[in-house]
Amino acid sequence: MKTHKDFMKMALNLAAKGEGFTSPNPMVGAVVVKDNIVIGKGYHEAVGKAHAEVNAIDDAGSAAKGAVLYVTLEPCNHTGRTPPCTEKILGAGIRQVVVAMNDPNPDVTGGGNDYLKSHGVDVISGICEDEAKKLNEVFIKYIRTKRPFVLLKCAMTLDGRIAARTGDSKWVSGEASRKFVHRLRHATDAIMVGIGTVKNDDPSLTTRLDDMKGSDPTRIILDTHLSIPQNAKMLRSDSDADTLIITGDSVSADKRAGIEKNKNVRVVESPLKNGVIDLDLLMDRLGAMGVTSLLIEGGGNVIASAMKAGIIDKINFFYAPKILGGDDGIPVCKGPGPDLMSDSAPVKNINVRRFGDDIMIEGYIDN
Amino acid sequence: MKTHKDFMKMALNLAAKGEGFTSPNPMVGAVVVKDNIVIGKGYHEAVGKAHAEVNAIDDAGSAAKGAVLYVTLEPCNHTGRTPPCTEKILGAGIRQVVVAMNDPNPDVTGGGNDYLKSHGVDVISGICEDEAKKLNEVFIKYIRTKRPFVLLKCAMTLDGRIAARTGDSKWVSGEASRKFVHRLRHATDAIMVGIGTVKNDDPSLTTRLDDMKGSDPTRIILDTHLSIPQNAKMLRSDSDADTLIITGDSVSADKRAGIEKNKNVRVVESPLKNGVIDLDLLMDRLGAMGVTSLLIEGGGNVIASAMKAGIIDKINFFYAPKILGGDDGIPVCKGPGPDLMSDSAPVKNINVRRFGDDIMIEGYIDN
Repeated sequence: MKTHKDFMKMALNLAAKGEGFTSPNPMVGAVVVKDNIVIGKGYHEAVGKAHAEVNAIDDAGSAAKGAVLYVTLEPCNHTGRTPPCTEKILGAGIRQVVVAMNDPNPDVTGGGNDYLKSHGVDVISGICEDEAKKLNEVFIKYIRTKRPFVLLKCAMTLDGRIAARTGDSKWVSGEASRKFVHRLRHATDAIMVGIGTVKNDDPSLTTRLDDMKGSDPTRIILDTHLSIPQNAKMLRSDSDADTLIITGDSVSADKRAGIEKNKNVRVVESPLKNGVIDLDLLMDRLGAMGVTSLLIEGGGNVIASAMKAGIIDKINFFYAPKILGGDDGIPVCKGPGPDLMSDSAPVKNINVRRFGDDIMIEGYIDN
Repeated sequence: MKTHKDFMKMALNLAAKGEGFTSPNPMVGAVVVKDNIVIGKGYHEAVGKAHAEVNAIDDAGSAAKGAVLYVTLEPCNHTGRTPPCTEKILGAGIRQVVVAMNDPNPDVTGGGNDYLKSHGVDVISGICEDEAKKLNEVFIKYIRTKRPFVLLKCAMTLDGRIAARTGDSKWVSGEASRKFVHRLRHATDAIMVGIGTVKNDDPSLTTRLDDMKGSDPTRIILDTHLSIPQNAKMLRSDSDADTLIITGDSVSADKRAGIEKNKNVRVVESPLKNGVIDLDLLMDRLGAMGVTSLLIEGGGNVIASAMKAGIIDKINFFYAPKILGGDDGIPVCKGPGPDLMSDSAPVKNINVRRFGDDIMIEGYIDN
């Protein structure tokens, strides 16, 4: 005999299949169950496609009548790109709906559940709620604040160095960690680095997955003085994803025009604060552009600015099993730090994962 | 029906009860089993006391005849402080001896097992061998090299800082980690810090355990120029353990005499190398003094010297769930580091433990 939790976990696993394709929508999964047997499954496959509930009910067909629907997010009760799922549920004759988490959108919370209840459907909410909230942490932040959920990824030695003093960083972390980072890129709307990283490492910042074609994130380069080299890989990428170069407001119009001749490359002027791009303001702007999630991959100046601006929601710090030694290697953060240990930024809900011999510490920062 | 492994794990758990009390002997545990039932238990409680086999056989009494003895280390076949355990085993009429690991002493390996076999006892070796070797990693290193097993303990923020730029480090790690460090001190013969740590933190470096009276390690201070303040806590300790101040060879005889007036405090002159205490040589000297294990607790200069000298066998790095920020906090190591990431020191057999919200990464360095 399977429990509500068992079926909800199936729905959550289905939901996760949409990772990287649903933004700005949440990932949602659903299963239809009758007599403790799954008779329909579905998930929200990509933005613009059908909602999970519709896919699962259609998969069950006429057998859905009198069945139980498990869905990881409260069904929508409004007409968006698609008709309301609540009507689909009522039309199919579902007798009970089990929901993991309510709609986090402050404008609609409870709307779907209440509508179903008022039409005689039994509704249970809160089954596997924590897992559902974690799965859609990006969506929850974005729908509430209209700013992107920011993940800081950093790979370092056990003594906290992201590169040797010469800038050499090949390699800090191992292959399993680097594979996971491509998964993160796939899952994320945009990726941000500083111009220093572009000049040192000349990365392409595309998504390379073994098992499927991934989504490339929008590439964002913080480049106050528009000093990006004309031959930087990111300017000459085959990728369909945009490259945005964020500059101050006094860059050469000629240089700008030259750079914008590259496919999918745009220069965006943005206000400065203390001589560097104001990241707090930039988050508002990226949010307005529909960027729901942002992955920061370094380097030290960008990380320090992001820490200071208080924009980081989550960290993924990879520790490689090696000690660089010395105090002249490249540190995680640059610039002045606080006087007191008690002025550190607390990292909450710590979780540890292994990637080969690397250790990844994941946690959250309140801001 | 319990297996060889089940009984050997009991013996290993018994062995571990001797932690902190058996040096320079190994920790050893033993159980006597008849008809799959434990009829005798024992462990080596402290140096100078009976061996584990003797305690277990005495605990079983005359029922030991025809029984199986599980012992975590090959029984000794030589007369030391106590008569050979092999004779005790033969005298008790034990029919089978199951051994976790052979004696690591290159002079005696196989001696006890072979002697028992030649007298008609069935001997099986290698059950839970890895666990037994880990339990006695200190003893194995010391018996083979006559140098102490060196453990480097360090607590840092997630961005690799052991203190803020002012030196403030209260607190990096949490209470559970600090408790574990007292356990490490209890288990270790000697603890070593640099004079910088004495001046900054004025630690007492004693062992404070909640559940029992622990052993204080010998305190070793690296103080090339004998600049230790007269009022340092370590000079005025109630502890029965010695404090050794390791200096270069040109320190003031008057100051030395004054410092040695303190109870249990000795000044030891030791050769320098590049202006600092030659740690490689010092390890030979400490080994000759019977120090089988050494815990290095910092600071950055000592850690850097120890890394360079290649004396570290094992690390315990604690990562506290916080980000200090900035590049001016106190790093793990001081001094110049290598040019290339590939010149990092690899850390092997990585293991991760949680202490409250802190994460401890344990690993080994070949040297």
